[in-house]
Amino acid sequence: MILMTARYFIKDGARDQVLADLIEMKQEMIRSEPGCVSYQVWESQEHPNQFLLCEVYIDEPAADAHRRTPHFERIIAGRVVPQLEKREREFFNLLVE
Amino acid sequence: MILMTARYFIKDGARDQVLADLIEMKQEMIRSEPGCVSYQVWESQEHPNQFLLCEVYIDEPAADAHRRTPHFERIIAGRVVPQLEKREREFFNLLVE
Repeated sequence: MILMTARYFIKDGARDQVLADLIEMKQEMIRSEPGCVSYQVWESQEHPNQFLLCEVYIDEPAADAHRRTPHFERIIAGRVVPQLEKREREFFNLLVE
Repeated sequence: MILMTARYFIKDGARDQVLADLIEMKQEMIRSEPGCVSYQVWESQEHPNQFLLCEVYIDEPAADAHRRTPHFERIIAGRVVPQLEKREREFFNLLVE
């Protein structure tokens, strides 16, 4: 299994809209991405405008396919990214489940 | 729910021992920490000597209690921490499950 973390640094005032967009994204993924094992959004206790997305995929192809979906283009690339100062992505392999 | 992430920067040559210690830690937690929802260990694809622990707890008290358990003292504080260059912990609140 593959974990992709994405840390979002959200522009001031955009937190609630980004959250709404990610809730919509989650619904789309449940419908059309069987390769996604879990998709969670967490908010840093120390940094209120920072979200940590933890996305687990069954394998590398499923993680790659995620970023080529229409809903990724429409919601993440189209609506969320313009509301971010920046984002940091990292990939991990599972050792202990 | 609370997510605690711990990024471990492992000393050269200590990776396999740290992994063995964390597998033992996981067994102890399954036996005695009902407040722990999940405990996963991931290895960074970009940085081989870096592990990311993702620990989900039902609430803050369960996360606090974890660090006062005998097995945390014995395994993490006693055996793992001396094998690390450093570690970074962060806490998050759940927004989207």
